[in-house]
Amino acid sequence: MLSFESDYIEGAHPKILERLIETNMEQLPGYGNDPYCRSAAEKIKAACACPGAEVFFLTGGTQTNMTVIDALLSPCEGVVAADTGHVSVHEAGAIEFTGHKVLTLPGEDGKIEAETLEEYLRTFFEDENHEHMVFPGAVYISHPTEYGTLYTKNELKGISRVCTTYGIPLYLDGARLGYGLAADGTDVTLPDIAKVCDAFYIGGTKVGALCGEAVVFTKKAPAHFMTRMKQHGALLAKGRLIGIQFDVLFTDGLYLEISRHAIAMAAVLKDAFRAKGYSFYLDSPTNQIFIVLDNRKMKELAENAAFSFWEKADEEHTVVRFATSWATKRENVDALIRLL
Amino acid sequence: MLSFESDYIEGAHPKILERLIETNMEQLPGYGNDPYCRSAAEKIKAACACPGAEVFFLTGGTQTNMTVIDALLSPCEGVVAADTGHVSVHEAGAIEFTGHKVLTLPGEDGKIEAETLEEYLRTFFEDENHEHMVFPGAVYISHPTEYGTLYTKNELKGISRVCTTYGIPLYLDGARLGYGLAADGTDVTLPDIAKVCDAFYIGGTKVGALCGEAVVFTKKAPAHFMTRMKQHGALLAKGRLIGIQFDVLFTDGLYLEISRHAIAMAAVLKDAFRAKGYSFYLDSPTNQIFIVLDNRKMKELAENAAFSFWEKADEEHTVVRFATSWATKRENVDALIRLL
Amino acid sequence: MLSFESDYIEGAHPKILERLIETNMEQLPGYGNDPYCRSAAEKIKAACACPGAEVFFLTGGTQTNMTVIDALLSPCEGVVAADTGHVSVHEAGAIEFTGHKVLTLPGEDGKIEAETLEEYLRTFFEDENHEHMVFPGAVYISHPTEYGTLYTKNELKGISRVCTTYGIPLYLDGARLGYGLAADGTDVTLPDIAKVCDAFYIGGTKVGALCGEAVVFTKKAPAHFMTRMKQHGALLAKGRLIGIQFDVLFTDGLYLEISRHAIAMAAVLKDAFRAKGYSFYLDSPTNQIFIVLDNRKMKELAENAAFSFWEKADEEHTVVRFATSWATKRENVDALIRLL
Amino acid sequence: MLSFESDYIEGAHPKILERLIETNMEQLPGYGNDPYCRSAAEKIKAACACPGAEVFFLTGGTQTNMTVIDALLSPCEGVVAADTGHVSVHEAGAIEFTGHKVLTLPGEDGKIEAETLEEYLRTFFEDENHEHMVFPGAVYISHPTEYGTLYTKNELKGISRVCTTYGIPLYLDGARLGYGLAADGTDVTLPDIAKVCDAFYIGGTKVGALCGEAVVFTKKAPAHFMTRMKQHGALLAKGRLIGIQFDVLFTDGLYLEISRHAIAMAAVLKDAFRAKGYSFYLDSPTNQIFIVLDNRKMKELAENAAFSFWEKADEEHTVVRFATSWATKRENVDALIRLL
Repeated sequence: MLSFESDYIEGAHPKILERLIETNMEQLPGYGNDPYCRSAAEKIKAACACPGAEVFFLTGGTQTNMTVIDALLSPCEGVVAADTGHVSVHEAGAIEFTGHKVLTLPGEDGKIEAETLEEYLRTFFEDENHEHMVFPGAVYISHPTEYGTLYTKNELKGISRVCTTYGIPLYLDGARLGYGLAADGTDVTLPDIAKVCDAFYIGGTKVGALCGEAVVFTKKAPAHFMTRMKQHGALLAKGRLIGIQFDVLFTDGLYLEISRHAIAMAAVLKDAFRAKGYSFYLDSPTNQIFIVLDNRKMKELAENAAFSFWEKADEEHTVVRFATSWATKRENVDALIRLL
Repeated sequence: MLSFESDYIEGAHPKILERLIETNMEQLPGYGNDPYCRSAAEKIKAACACPGAEVFFLTGGTQTNMTVIDALLSPCEGVVAADTGHVSVHEAGAIEFTGHKVLTLPGEDGKIEAETLEEYLRTFFEDENHEHMVFPGAVYISHPTEYGTLYTKNELKGISRVCTTYGIPLYLDGARLGYGLAADGTDVTLPDIAKVCDAFYIGGTKVGALCGEAVVFTKKAPAHFMTRMKQHGALLAKGRLIGIQFDVLFTDGLYLEISRHAIAMAAVLKDAFRAKGYSFYLDSPTNQIFIVLDNRKMKELAENAAFSFWEKADEEHTVVRFATSWATKRENVDALIRLL
Repeated sequence: MLSFESDYIEGAHPKILERLIETNMEQLPGYGNDPYCRSAAEKIKAACACPGAEVFFLTGGTQTNMTVIDALLSPCEGVVAADTGHVSVHEAGAIEFTGHKVLTLPGEDGKIEAETLEEYLRTFFEDENHEHMVFPGAVYISHPTEYGTLYTKNELKGISRVCTTYGIPLYLDGARLGYGLAADGTDVTLPDIAKVCDAFYIGGTKVGALCGEAVVFTKKAPAHFMTRMKQHGALLAKGRLIGIQFDVLFTDGLYLEISRHAIAMAAVLKDAFRAKGYSFYLDSPTNQIFIVLDNRKMKELAENAAFSFWEKADEEHTVVRFATSWATKRENVDALIRLL
Repeated sequence: MLSFESDYIEGAHPKILERLIETNMEQLPGYGNDPYCRSAAEKIKAACACPGAEVFFLTGGTQTNMTVIDALLSPCEGVVAADTGHVSVHEAGAIEFTGHKVLTLPGEDGKIEAETLEEYLRTFFEDENHEHMVFPGAVYISHPTEYGTLYTKNELKGISRVCTTYGIPLYLDGARLGYGLAADGTDVTLPDIAKVCDAFYIGGTKVGALCGEAVVFTKKAPAHFMTRMKQHGALLAKGRLIGIQFDVLFTDGLYLEISRHAIAMAAVLKDAFRAKGYSFYLDSPTNQIFIVLDNRKMKELAENAAFSFWEKADEEHTVVRFATSWATKRENVDALIRLL
């Protein structure tokens, strides 16, 4: 069975495993106070061209979103997000579990627009009843979005400008950040992201790591952030596990290099879909490909390949997703193409 | 200054004050265990034709919604509501404060439709990823809605049928329930509501009381509901304060009688608006009247009358609300009409 | 049946009811923005000799404690309290419901000592693991305590000094504050309390009001406190209900005057207990009297008088509480004495 | 520098790393639905002699405690624990963060006694005011405790009996469970634990794994436990990471075998401490050794060996902890002994 079901179906990049073995018997302090976490943080700060940043390592995406957003918000604030945002739909209410509302804006292929955000904020503060409502306290965007789409540098600057005007921090969910940075045609770099965001995370789980996300606070971390992590069950005793992984991923540009591979594999696959006349649900420049399949064809394909259900298009068609990753083998892409 | 700003600008119905005075020095147990709370509960159960109900008294609407909804939901569930629902917009995130998400459906003049609800629930449970999402655990409707509109008996039955099919309790916010029951043309009675809902509250604050809402669980109250009230800061030491008020309101049909007065005053006012060519924002059969005013006219009127801002219609027009209540004086209505 | 069960068994002081009637049909804005709330706040600030204070009105004690403490704490902080403190034992976990721990110190007749507090705080910050623990973020004391005991001015100053040293706000629960201020021999005045505390509340429910507590932030209220109140279900639509009551209580010294009556009645009763050889559980200078009763005597008394169970002393004796209040009638005290 | 600071200073058992490498490029489903998680669960159920159990894998101890305890409790319940319990003191208020109180009992070297528990529960339900208090909804014990001590089988049965009588689930924190099972003289086996507990976890982080704890619900998991995990940020995308580790640990008795090594190393060290006349703070049969050191000696030792601060004994003495683990080398133990 060929699997294109998601970008977290394999283990870790081999260099990570090697390094875990090399360092395995070193005796290191816990809770992220080891030299590998420090080294990884330094490399990330350098890659972000943001020497004043503070970096923390958490285990997974939902955990990271809920811990960071809770720390950015004051208690009567909520987080603004696209209605399709991961925090809004697919995190089992983890944000609300911490007591905060997700304030949704209509998204366009997973993205929000600076104008929509500005209009929302202006209307909110103009509303005479706004003290009876949830204050917008942070803005959440994902890049790539849940639909694999990307912001342009200008779009990010626009959103950032609105956030600055209203004094509201901007937070970017980079679960698949590598695939965004490596995409063809993007003009957004890691330093650009560090410049426009107050906080963001660099995804490891979906980009080469066994687990782990690196949170970057570009200015200053919220007070007692380590204690907040502990309180959310997000502080790993053997912090080294994530520190070592990011240390490897940010050595000699490995993170971007393996991301580029996923993009290249996706390009091959997209060309094949196009050549064979398949209908794209939307145009994604990253590692996720959304195709509208005839239900009969879907069943047929499913016998030999795994992909993921996205949504029903109509009675006879279904939107499905194929994902490539750092680990996707060319031979599997070719085999899939032969099935199309 | 004439005030039509809301339905909670006066104190209490005089009969309530009389009764508070008569009973003032009686020595009564606290926390709702007094004979007036019991008597009020019995009268409410009779008015609802629901002898098996359990009745509790809370202080205000937001408090009631947050306490009841939190008690109806299990921890990974959220409450389904219209996007314009009070719990969704105007309660400062009190539902999220208790850890639950408000799952919004598009509302039509404040109402949700059985079909929309059914479609939402079906889609949710069909979604292969629904275990990563917030489960719908209760349905919230308001009657009258925030726009003063009403459900028909058939509409309520439709929603109730969907809830029953999916095993999800139906909760009705009756902050202005009296004005709904007393409206011209409605076919919905209090026993009808008790029949379709698992829980609802009969609003006191806006219908003749100083404060207080009566929660009716038509089948069985959630376990340890009194302790839950305490935990939410919603248990009054002198429970008698609310018990006595509802005992008066449900004696000799006072609750409906004073509600009818508000409807009658609203009718006079609506006729005048219509006669003078004003434009209605929507057609509300209850005590709230939504008018689209030219901004100049709005300023002029505001010099002698208070009403409430609802939303901007366009650059030159504004939607405003005029509310009548049990306490509205005919002479004030006439005075307002002279200003139109 | 004579009742000495608690200090909230009657309604309100007659002057309050009179004023509710006089003002009943005035049309006033909601949510505490009416002239009576403003007037009450001014009178309270004057009585506290604290012109810079901010005053808010909430409905009951548990609600007030949970709302204020949650607003004083940052998310990884807890509140320090005596192990017998009301917030620790008798509020159904309302503090924990808002996400915060109650950090308990051993109490002495309901009081904590400055030395114990200082030792606790010093040890906490010296502990190398304190970032894995709950930070102390506020100190809670009650005055009178749950045992009717009082702090001296010096004791309060001592606690306040420790709080200042550690930069931790001091919050005083004054559910029965009037009875503390009116007690014989106390050297603590309302301005003293305003001077040592960052926040405290003046209890209304147990001292003459139908409901209501007045929160005083002596320096500055937490940001958006009104929205926090709403979020906790603690914002009354008809804020006037509490504003009017406190306006009356703080006119012409009524609050202290009626408190003195409760103290006088308690003195008569204590003298009788003493004269008849009853054994006191502890010596309380305020309106609560704790007596150790032989179980047989307890049953006998209970036939004609209500009092409240406190705790089992041993197999044959029980600690019970008799409470007087602003409403206690001398004739009832005499009748009770005849039963002893 | 020799390190005896804790039992999580090295990486993972070599066999685990080997297996991670062997399985690395297999394409597996996420969220714990892979064959390794299933296989590990089966092996654990066999080792527990509890075929009806349900097993889940989480990342760390605090996360596991907060997620399981929150799932066991209903909203107005708290968890009973020793005052020294990890959930009570060293988890940054994670339990309270989920809205629940930790109800503390006086511990004896980290343990609670069945009698104390029974007395607490009886008193609670006898208290006429208990509906205003936090209901005890689960009992938390740790084995080994935070002090390295162990329950006997009889003691566990006693606690379990009390829990059963009151219908309250018993939960055991087994962060160091291996070291407890392997201790000399213990009569408690894994099946014994499965028999007395409703839920417990088998610690991996401190017993050979990079990260991970295996939760065992001996009867039935709480409803939607996977969604609860997600909501708490505790659901790993690559669940295989923990599944594979536990699959290795529960193959051919590895878990117990490596635990025995830690016990053997601790025995050598304890003998040396004893022989050299050191004073033990308490007698622990497991892998943690608590020694009272003269402060001068402590400083001297600290130059060449790392151990952890426990608490101040008096002005001149300090309690410190030395921990061995599955990874402790005999040569390091000998080197430490030479320093004593």
